[in-house]
Amino acid sequence: MIIVKIGGSVFSDKKGKPENFDVETVREIAREIANFYPREDFIVVHGGGSFGHPEAKKYGIRDGLPEDWESASLKRIGFTLTHQAMLRANAKFIEAFVAENLPAFSVSTSSVFITENGEVAYGDVEVIERLLELKFIPVLFGDVSIDLAKGIDILSGDQIITYLTKMLEPKKVIFLMDVDGIYDGKPGEGELVQNLSKEEIDALLDRLHCTAAGTDVTGGICNKLREAKKIAEHSEVWFVNGKVPGRLSGAIRGDGFGTRLRG
Amino acid sequence: MIIVKIGGSVFSDKKGKPENFDVETVREIAREIANFYPREDFIVVHGGGSFGHPEAKKYGIRDGLPEDWESASLKRIGFTLTHQAMLRANAKFIEAFVAENLPAFSVSTSSVFITENGEVAYGDVEVIERLLELKFIPVLFGDVSIDLAKGIDILSGDQIITYLTKMLEPKKVIFLMDVDGIYDGKPGEGELVQNLSKEEIDALLDRLHCTAAGTDVTGGICNKLREAKKIAEHSEVWFVNGKVPGRLSGAIRGDGFGTRLRG
Repeated sequence: MIIVKIGGSVFSDKKGKPENFDVETVREIAREIANFYPREDFIVVHGGGSFGHPEAKKYGIRDGLPEDWESASLKRIGFTLTHQAMLRANAKFIEAFVAENLPAFSVSTSSVFITENGEVAYGDVEVIERLLELKFIPVLFGDVSIDLAKGIDILSGDQIITYLTKMLEPKKVIFLMDVDGIYDGKPGEGELVQNLSKEEIDALLDRLHCTAAGTDVTGGICNKLREAKKIAEHSEVWFVNGKVPGRLSGAIRGDGFGTRLRG
Repeated sequence: MIIVKIGGSVFSDKKGKPENFDVETVREIAREIANFYPREDFIVVHGGGSFGHPEAKKYGIRDGLPEDWESASLKRIGFTLTHQAMLRANAKFIEAFVAENLPAFSVSTSSVFITENGEVAYGDVEVIERLLELKFIPVLFGDVSIDLAKGIDILSGDQIITYLTKMLEPKKVIFLMDVDGIYDGKPGEGELVQNLSKEEIDALLDRLHCTAAGTDVTGGICNKLREAKKIAEHSEVWFVNGKVPGRLSGAIRGDGFGTRLRG
């Protein structure tokens, strides 16, 4: 089984119009997966892009649920609207995959996972496992979450993958990004790291000044690297450009262009 | 806590255009709930109406997943399209409830429940319980399901309620219908049964010729009565007209017009 993460920046322009969706890129991703399915099983997890992030920021979902009833009421509405925005993104993925004859099936992240300070504290993977057995392609997404510490929070796609990797032991996790992989420096400026070992990640985090949280609501590249380190305990990890046709196929085959992190 | 079931025929005309939605009726239902929330906690479960039923029938979801790869492939696509149609209905409910300032939160039935021949075999109510604690209104819906016996099946809203009632012990379950309650005979023809006891249900099922499954994909009134009998073990049950303003409020207060089944 292979887990494919489709980053928000791959299918959507965060600086563009609200809820913009690059259907051509997603159709190409689906076509590449279709070349390997059903020989290979897949789970797809996508990010928020211009769908979830604006709502999540507007309502300050990451700050949790306040004590005051009036403020909490507004926050609850924001929580539900953020989820609905993510369901709209997800519906576009399902449509694009079905158009390529793939039985992609929507699994609502917030119906399945409970977090504690943004990390998965509890998740029921029973439905996901059975979907795989029946040759469906479960499609999850970064979402709002019930949080044991803060009442409510955001659960990023990357963190879902860390949890799924622990529970389901995929043979490979592929992160699709809008750059060619992990750079030793700013994306597009520093040198592309084509091979990375778990042991080298801490030094790289230092060089990238990953001390605080990243710039986007789910933590960006620093968070991705930290999660990748945990994922690498259980699986091989690839970071490839999701906007360049063929790169995903290369990562699935194992001879592709991008960053390979050996488990 | 009160569970409100909004039948497909209350918000949608099955004989009308595909995916028609009676937003005025749903807004009125939301307004009546808003008069009791947050003093009272609610779970809402809605049916399929003109959303889920046509797809479910077209693809024969209730027949399960066949052995043959080609037939199974088509069935998988139908399974995912049926769920997407239900999510579109659900999104309209969330929108109508939010418009009345209610923090209705979508929980995807198929992400949470696994069936065996159409009955809930397994369901994780952890997220639903925590949503209630945080004063959200979980909104579930009749949906497709992974099925232990048949591979795939349909899980009706009524059956979800039977399970939730066992697990969560609501003080009341209210079924909203497009008629005034349960009739001793054809709806609108026989006499309205205003008070019903558990012990009288079997005789009523006989008089209604409820030997085989009902006429719609989820079993109709016969199935509803059979589920109501199980629900009445744990909770008071009301059947009222969801299209007549005030009837839901009457059932919530306990002095309303319709059929009351004492637990």
